Amino acid sequence: MIPAKLIEKKRDGFELNAKEIAWFVEGTVENKIDDCQLSALLMAIYFNGMSDLETFSLVESMVNSGKRFKFNSPGNYIADKHSTGGIGDKISFILAPILSSLGIIIPMIAGRGLAYTGGTIDKLESIPNFQTSINGKDFESQIQNIGYGIISQSSEICPADKKIYSIRDLTGTIPSMPLICSSIMSKKIAEGLDGLIMDIKVGNGAFMKTISEAKILAAELKKIGSAFKIKTDITFSNMSQPLGRYAGLRCEIIESINCLNGDGPNDLIELSLELGSKILLQSKKADNKNEAKKKMLETIKNGTALKKFEELIVAQGGNFEQLQMSGSRIKNELYICSDRDGYISSMDTEKIGWALVEMGCGRRRDKDLLDYTAGIKFNVKIGETVKKGEKVYTLFGENIKKLENAKLMLHKTFKVSSETILKSKLILC
Amino acid sequence: MIPAKLIEKKRDGFELNAKEIAWFVEGTVENKIDDCQLSALLMAIYFNGMSDLETFSLVESMVNSGKRFKFNSPGNYIADKHSTGGIGDKISFILAPILSSLGIIIPMIAGRGLAYTGGTIDKLESIPNFQTSINGKDFESQIQNIGYGIISQSSEICPADKKIYSIRDLTGTIPSMPLICSSIMSKKIAEGLDGLIMDIKVGNGAFMKTISEAKILAAELKKIGSAFKIKTDITFSNMSQPLGRYAGLRCEIIESINCLNGDGPNDLIELSLELGSKILLQSKKADNKNEAKKKMLETIKNGTALKKFEELIVAQGGNFEQLQMSGSRIKNELYICSDRDGYISSMDTEKIGWALVEMGCGRRRDKDLLDYTAGIKFNVKIGETVKKGEKVYTLFGENIKKLENAKLMLHKTFKVSSETILKSKLILC
Repeated sequence: MIPAKLIEKKRDGFELNAKEIAWFVEGTVENKIDDCQLSALLMAIYFNGMSDLETFSLVESMVNSGKRFKFNSPGNYIADKHSTGGIGDKISFILAPILSSLGIIIPMIAGRGLAYTGGTIDKLESIPNFQTSINGKDFESQIQNIGYGIISQSSEICPADKKIYSIRDLTGTIPSMPLICSSIMSKKIAEGLDGLIMDIKVGNGAFMKTISEAKILAAELKKIGSAFKIKTDITFSNMSQPLGRYAGLRCEIIESINCLNGDGPNDLIELSLELGSKILLQSKKADNKNEAKKKMLETIKNGTALKKFEELIVAQGGNFEQLQMSGSRIKNELYICSDRDGYISSMDTEKIGWALVEMGCGRRRDKDLLDYTAGIKFNVKIGETVKKGEKVYTLFGENIKKLENAKLMLHKTFKVSSETILKSKLILC
Repeated sequence: MIPAKLIEKKRDGFELNAKEIAWFVEGTVENKIDDCQLSALLMAIYFNGMSDLETFSLVESMVNSGKRFKFNSPGNYIADKHSTGGIGDKISFILAPILSSLGIIIPMIAGRGLAYTGGTIDKLESIPNFQTSINGKDFESQIQNIGYGIISQSSEICPADKKIYSIRDLTGTIPSMPLICSSIMSKKIAEGLDGLIMDIKVGNGAFMKTISEAKILAAELKKIGSAFKIKTDITFSNMSQPLGRYAGLRCEIIESINCLNGDGPNDLIELSLELGSKILLQSKKADNKNEAKKKMLETIKNGTALKKFEELIVAQGGNFEQLQMSGSRIKNELYICSDRDGYISSMDTEKIGWALVEMGCGRRRDKDLLDYTAGIKFNVKIGETVKKGEKVYTLFGENIKKLENAKLMLHKTFKVSSETILKSKLILC
């Protein structure tokens, strides 16, 4: 096979067969095919799309490029949650211990911050000494021992996806539906899952700005899930304001622990219960949503969920006590206040995300250093009342300069209306 | 500027401005922009095309990436001919000395064989010791001294074109009209021309199979010519059979010399006169076509054109006597004969071209070695009569194995009809 001929075939709208796709993907990983040829193929895919068969072949090839986990846990249901990314989204730290304490096996491979959205792995690494790079063997025994774990994508897992993603990032080929979906699903398939719940964020802080785009993505993901025998449910959730009261790195871990302590904001609890109940229904651990949610709430009340989270931190080398102490040492605070009385009517969530990047909670370039101490507290949210002069945001962190820069970016990121504004719906459908 | 942002802009159908294109092209040459980013942009251009302004900017940037000749020859007209490539096309070796002996300055930058078509530079290098890589300074003094020269594209001339072309070749982005045209024209503009005659080949041995495609190309080339103040005329010529009686490397040089000796086949003379007369009209060296053609024929009759060709060979280090001797030393001959009486009705010219590649007159890969001794003589051509058992092709060359392979490829490359077939028209329009 000749790479240019396959590129031309795709360019001209013909379907590549499974053999051709596998050959191209393998060649890419083994550096037998030039990066310039990979990017040309990706751009041709951007323009011409992919058939279902092509997409499935791409997913299969990406999974086959690395390790595919097989956990020996007969009778146990293996599941994961994936979110398309937003601001203040710390659901994994709440949901995974809850489901784990109900007997679901959760081998989660999570990502770092992307553009203006926060990253699960970055947040976990704010826990002193917490290890997210764990080799496949050690991960398998952790899953065997405590039933769950959260690690970052290593070169063992879907190396083809890693390679393709890095080229897409450079070449304007990120927003291609088959490429987005195969990247998400290949890692989930490598986890050896029985079931998956996808939290597709919609709104001005999400990659999907409209529900119609989100539904196309959902259909594509479900198709791949079904082709690879993974029960895949979808929840569309509102990302038109940050989730919870905090956004940043360590502060989100602390907020999650508070949540597992029974002291969390409603939206975090509501979304966690919604997503988790679908996994409990898939796995037949509950007969209906109410029962599922009741069981989940019980793990918070009786403390088993929090204990599970502590267990995870310890298993992955993290220092739970040091983490709790570090939460109280905040050096600087800046405030953004309302200039009038009224109701918060909207928030520019993407802009808030970019301010968080400025503060060190995300990266503009690969080598940018993160600041685990930085974050924003959202004292009021959409539909809540605010008085003139009242603090809307509290910015905190070690680096006052960065806070000052972020403050400049945050001034016009919320609107106050004199009319009553209803609280916005969190679960869209 | 960020490369990925420019790729996205083009991908989404927006026009890149001159600054953006110049920045991208410069970055490409200076290796500040990755090859994978260049190829993604090229594929986006393949899909979305380029506006006139974008094309002109690309041409300008490619020219500016290298040396732009300026010959100090007041009152002299500087011109060149460019052909889109075919089989047996040796017009440059006939036309350039004729026009040169009529006072036209010809600083020709020519190419090597591409796919199944022959290359002017490859043919010249079959002349013992002939140098085609000449640096810009030496080329300028050669033009000053003898008024013409034929060299290959060096890294001094349009390095951006060289880079872009090499990536296009690997990534399925060759057949893009703005990329084809900017590649052709950038080198012509670097030559510092006043006028250009384009010989666009049409037919089963040409890259353009139909006249309508050829006309789109012509319009695009004329547009660029006019933007850069080069008088550009177009001739559409028939490439549904090889040009002349010979195709190969050294044999084409010998046939050209015979032509300049007054002993050439009609088609070579007809096309040379047609193309050359347009340059003589452009330069006002003739008032009408008849006068122009008469002047050109006179340079053959009085021997000045042949002398000019000898002068070129000597100026570029070639050994004219050794060349003439080498022509008679043919080791092997194979024949393809007709299996019936009749008229040659068609020839599969592209297939003949691939057989020539097999014989060593072209390359499948960059590193393939050429065989200067190999070639095919076309004893009969379309519209001519042939008897059963008569030789249609004579294959000759040093390597009998290659000749045998080529023979297998050539069997079904001509058709014989029992009905009278008219000779095909050479100048289409």
